Amino acid sequence: MRCLVIYAHLNPFSFNHAVKQEVERLLEEMGHEVKVSDLYEMDFKAVLKPEDLNLLYSGSAAADVKVEQEKVTWAERLILVYPIWWTGFPAILKGYIDRVFSYGFAYAIDERGWVQPLKGRKALLITTHGQPESVYHDRMYTSLRDTQDVGVFQFCGIEAQHVFFPGIMGSSDELRQGYLNSLRDALAEL
Amino acid sequence: MRCLVIYAHLNPFSFNHAVKQEVERLLEEMGHEVKVSDLYEMDFKAVLKPEDLNLLYSGSAAADVKVEQEKVTWAERLILVYPIWWTGFPAILKGYIDRVFSYGFAYAIDERGWVQPLKGRKALLITTHGQPESVYHDRMYTSLRDTQDVGVFQFCGIEAQHVFFPGIMGSSDELRQGYLNSLRDALAEL
Repeated sequence: MRCLVIYAHLNPFSFNHAVKQEVERLLEEMGHEVKVSDLYEMDFKAVLKPEDLNLLYSGSAAADVKVEQEKVTWAERLILVYPIWWTGFPAILKGYIDRVFSYGFAYAIDERGWVQPLKGRKALLITTHGQPESVYHDRMYTSLRDTQDVGVFQFCGIEAQHVFFPGIMGSSDELRQGYLNSLRDALAEL
Repeated sequence: MRCLVIYAHLNPFSFNHAVKQEVERLLEEMGHEVKVSDLYEMDFKAVLKPEDLNLLYSGSAAADVKVEQEKVTWAERLILVYPIWWTGFPAILKGYIDRVFSYGFAYAIDERGWVQPLKGRKALLITTHGQPESVYHDRMYTSLRDTQDVGVFQFCGIEAQHVFFPGIMGSSDELRQGYLNSLRDALAEL
């Protein structure tokens, strides 16, 4: 399948980066076609500006957004790798959503109601958390799913799965390796 | 009281802007001291970069972050005015949180456990939503509070209240005026 990996971490020595590398390696091993959007490497502009609303009015998106929209259109599966910061997306990834998943591209309204041009795709969200699982009670996991899986992807008709890797701050090599080992099964269900 | 208004909308003709203006007017009328951080006007840099982690290592934040940290330290009350985009903060405001509410400034860990240097402050979140209330079932409101009020502000010991203004897309002047009229009571409880 055609897979787009969207990755958002500033540190090439981070566990997030190791996850991204392993995801790429496994997807290729499984025979998928892979494209990667490494948002920090691309220095992706996170802030929605008036010109980003052009698609709504003139049908033409900003050049950097257009490139990403073509990748999303191409992809059958979106795999996002990012840290949970302040119980949300890092700003660079939130900005990717704000700008790339624009009205007319990711959702629209016509005379029949909501339109979901990206429907049929699936997304896999793979997220790390500094804090251990005990800090995130069940309700917070529900809230993270609501405001990421549901509020973004399912809103666009994209079925979303979410894999959580908590307790990264000060974690053991064993915990990290266990998380990396679990990626094969998570990706097999794509 | 000393109030910092943090405002994040790109459009000076938006309802958000009208809310921000009315908040400023009422706070001054009530005799509070007011500072405003208009993130779009400031062209605030939303993306956390390696130099933003300096505070952790060298005790020195980036210049633009330091200015904002001084405002937050000065303030007894934080009033945030912003639209909910994709069930979250606009990227420019998420980036403000990612960068300004840094380790060592907004939270830390010492030998006794978590430290909350900003404790005692209160925050009021005033948010608009394009969609009507009926789309946001009760669980989504809980999730928005969890990932904004709780996950950001209460994590830092800042007591948070949240006022929701749904149904802005295509709304009547009457609805908007009613929302503006309700700000006096919301701010009186600061």
